[in-house]
Amino acid sequence: MTYCVAMSLAQGLVFVSDSRTNAGVDHISVFRKLHVFGVPGERLIVLQSAGNLATSQSVISLLRQRLDGVGEHLHNVPSLFAAATLVGDTLREVLAHDESATLNQGIELGCSFLLGGQIHGQAPALYNLYPQGNFITSSEDTPYFQIGESKYGKPILDRALSYQTPLELALRCALISFDSTIRSNLSVGMPLDLLVYKTDSFEVPSGFRVREGDAYFEGIRQQWCGGLSTLLGQLAEAPGDYWV
Amino acid sequence: MTYCVAMSLAQGLVFVSDSRTNAGVDHISVFRKLHVFGVPGERLIVLQSAGNLATSQSVISLLRQRLDGVGEHLHNVPSLFAAATLVGDTLREVLAHDESATLNQGIELGCSFLLGGQIHGQAPALYNLYPQGNFITSSEDTPYFQIGESKYGKPILDRALSYQTPLELALRCALISFDSTIRSNLSVGMPLDLLVYKTDSFEVPSGFRVREGDAYFEGIRQQWCGGLSTLLGQLAEAPGDYWV
Repeated sequence: MTYCVAMSLAQGLVFVSDSRTNAGVDHISVFRKLHVFGVPGERLIVLQSAGNLATSQSVISLLRQRLDGVGEHLHNVPSLFAAATLVGDTLREVLAHDESATLNQGIELGCSFLLGGQIHGQAPALYNLYPQGNFITSSEDTPYFQIGESKYGKPILDRALSYQTPLELALRCALISFDSTIRSNLSVGMPLDLLVYKTDSFEVPSGFRVREGDAYFEGIRQQWCGGLSTLLGQLAEAPGDYWV
Repeated sequence: MTYCVAMSLAQGLVFVSDSRTNAGVDHISVFRKLHVFGVPGERLIVLQSAGNLATSQSVISLLRQRLDGVGEHLHNVPSLFAAATLVGDTLREVLAHDESATLNQGIELGCSFLLGGQIHGQAPALYNLYPQGNFITSSEDTPYFQIGESKYGKPILDRALSYQTPLELALRCALISFDSTIRSNLSVGMPLDLLVYKTDSFEVPSGFRVREGDAYFEGIRQQWCGGLSTLLGQLAEAPGDYWV
């Protein structure tokens, strides 16, 4: 499984992905699921993937190979909408190739992508691409998307995140969402890859890898866990009729 | 969907169930999923159900009807293990009846049960019955079970609950677990049914229904939500290299 979250906020974009892939409980590996495209000063396009690894790797490989070609690619598409369309079309191309193979033994080949970034002269944008290759975009009402194992980490996002949340606080919120998921689900695991983009900076950040034992992440995990227990203890006691 | 949680702790047992059932998004109803059997002074047996409502209602109806019969029933079984076996067998009986019908049009008929309680002379116990009718029991290492829409509400249980958690604090923890689930998932809804049993009391509590707008529950929901935001704001800021 996988867990990825992406946020499109007033101050910019936040992307966090785990790196665990598994086939059953035996075949567990580390693969990067956060992929950065861009031209410094002009555009940043970040892709996160969940689902069938063969499919998502093929899509990313084709997108990278074509950057040097003459056709439309992620470094020359005129908008993020066009970028999302291109990724969806590439996904359909990979699926059409693999699904036509006679060896497709009932395996789920689909995968999902989150695509976010900014192209000079346009506002930042965030898209959620379905396994069918179509997509939706975020809004001020719904400023974040998740793909993969999303349920454990959703409550803290629903409670604490809004479009106006400052970027650094949103990053903390995303990290706590990952902590909740990692504690409750074996299929999501360290290290985490994250990238924060400030609106109109037109930088192409390389992102940061949070490794097992990272001092800051371990610190806030402990602070959060202790704080939650304290908070639970501070809630008013249940009235007598709850006990009857 | 449904969400039920049951805990077997040093001081006793806690059961909380939501009451929303739905078929798609249209056919939404309120049905009780927490069912109490018992003989005051001698035994308490609580059943919670998730899954196909026709199946779980049939199982509960048969168990109730047979309380007056001569055979084995929940008011005369010698142990909670025997009670869990009886419920599993009754589930298999219902499934065998309905699955043999020619009208089973690919509908999922299965359901899950949590069964907990105490019989005089024995320790309290808690069982998780699978849709196949077999079951597992809780332990000091794993003192709680969930059925239904369990993921949203699992992180707080994993963080804050242990076998030694006092009963009243465990109840608060369960209520917060429900709040997290209700906020993030439309298929779980109010009112909630809850029941708290103190070990060796051999009472048969009627339980309490937490209705929409309940002053205590609303109070702790707000207190929790505000507390989480405060706690998130108190975490250390991410170091500079997280931002690169």
